[in-house]
Amino acid sequence: MAAAIGVFDSGIGGLTVLKELVSAFPHESFIYLGDTARLPYGTKSSQTIRKYSEQTIEFLLSQGVKAVVIACNSASSQFPEADWKGIPVYNVIEPGSQLAVQTSKNAKIGVLGTKATIASRAYQNRIQSLSTKAEVYSAACPLFVPLAEEGLYNDPITELTIQKYLNDIVDKGVDTIVLGCTHYPLLETSIAKYCGPKIKLISSGLAITNLLKLDMNSGRLKPTTELKGSVSIYTTDTSQHFIDLSKKIMSPLVIDRFEQVDL
Amino acid sequence: MAAAIGVFDSGIGGLTVLKELVSAFPHESFIYLGDTARLPYGTKSSQTIRKYSEQTIEFLLSQGVKAVVIACNSASSQFPEADWKGIPVYNVIEPGSQLAVQTSKNAKIGVLGTKATIASRAYQNRIQSLSTKAEVYSAACPLFVPLAEEGLYNDPITELTIQKYLNDIVDKGVDTIVLGCTHYPLLETSIAKYCGPKIKLISSGLAITNLLKLDMNSGRLKPTTELKGSVSIYTTDTSQHFIDLSKKIMSPLVIDRFEQVDL
Repeated sequence: MAAAIGVFDSGIGGLTVLKELVSAFPHESFIYLGDTARLPYGTKSSQTIRKYSEQTIEFLLSQGVKAVVIACNSASSQFPEADWKGIPVYNVIEPGSQLAVQTSKNAKIGVLGTKATIASRAYQNRIQSLSTKAEVYSAACPLFVPLAEEGLYNDPITELTIQKYLNDIVDKGVDTIVLGCTHYPLLETSIAKYCGPKIKLISSGLAITNLLKLDMNSGRLKPTTELKGSVSIYTTDTSQHFIDLSKKIMSPLVIDRFEQVDL
Repeated sequence: MAAAIGVFDSGIGGLTVLKELVSAFPHESFIYLGDTARLPYGTKSSQTIRKYSEQTIEFLLSQGVKAVVIACNSASSQFPEADWKGIPVYNVIEPGSQLAVQTSKNAKIGVLGTKATIASRAYQNRIQSLSTKAEVYSAACPLFVPLAEEGLYNDPITELTIQKYLNDIVDKGVDTIVLGCTHYPLLETSIAKYCGPKIKLISSGLAITNLLKLDMNSGRLKPTTELKGSVSIYTTDTSQHFIDLSKKIMSPLVIDRFEQVDL
């Protein structure tokens, strides 16, 4: 079997990235790791997130992957390296920042993320180095991950929470908002409803997919020669809730197998 | 120094128990462990919660404690043993069930808890074995822990979430509700406002304090001979947010030291 592309997140959020990747690269195989026994990452310290990220990357390397996609902004903010032991590592902050700068017309950009991602200033710094005139307004949204994990995608509680977190940013007149956590696209319909049609939402999945396409064309990442890829999902905890929600998020795409591992 | 009483939880919730214990036993010393690097427990599987609980108890034993209080209902539901390597272990489900049965006049009792606690049926089974005519109505409230960890004790989002989770239970005519998660007393003002004055709320802190008093009188647990105890708090992650919130919850009681450990 050809080498797979490894993808990881603390929980279900990274599946929004996996879904974009599987749709864009149907010939490739993917191994996804959800570190659900230690979920969430975004409320934890930078040292702890770094330690967990190294352990998850090591697991994916032990499965023989040819590249690792960090489908978690909190982990990406603590893992800037472009490779690890000779294997390319993609974080979601670089392509997300680029897409935001390309998209914004008025250079007023909002960034939503976990406490860890916002505190790291990874997006703010990267966007302002790509566009010196950019004004960046950020907000930590710690309740979005539990709301997404609970499947409350269109719920009055979610709408009230969106209002709490986004009110100030929208008031600043941003025309582009980075969904700087891979869970947030699960709440995208509700977020878009609050923001209205004039604000463009940038998700990590689309941004990273564009980057992988470029790297396959340039030869940095070797495409598979297989006809049909497979999708395997590993988790560090067992949970029927996770399996059910994963199938729902990935639908109509098919997950070939689920397995539990200890890290 | 006299042996301390060990107390643990995944995060800040157990501090509601610690506060009751320190108030009731000012001469005793306490060592609290918050497993914040792996928080929360209540959404995880029973095997994972059991594993984490054993590791935290082992840490407290390594500190020479004379007893362990599991100040976490999710962990209590997976750890029924009354002792561990010769040291008494107290879980919060037994005393909480007893207090609920003593308090209820109409034998209609509500139980709120995490997914893990409710799925374990630990309260339901124990209450019904104490009172065969008891009707128990339970509800998993997975968003209460993140709301409490965020400090949103009196917030419209919390009020809307309380309505979502408690509506059915209150409709059943319960006169007593067990706050079956040590985080929930942090939301007690909002929960009491929704329930009204006719429903009594039972918290783990009060119930376990009564039990420890009995055991000190009976000799199962030896009281200290020191004049003044100390309170040490260990966490598995570093977080200023945790330290700030801990001081606020424990106030006016004083925490003597904070320290970080790896499990």
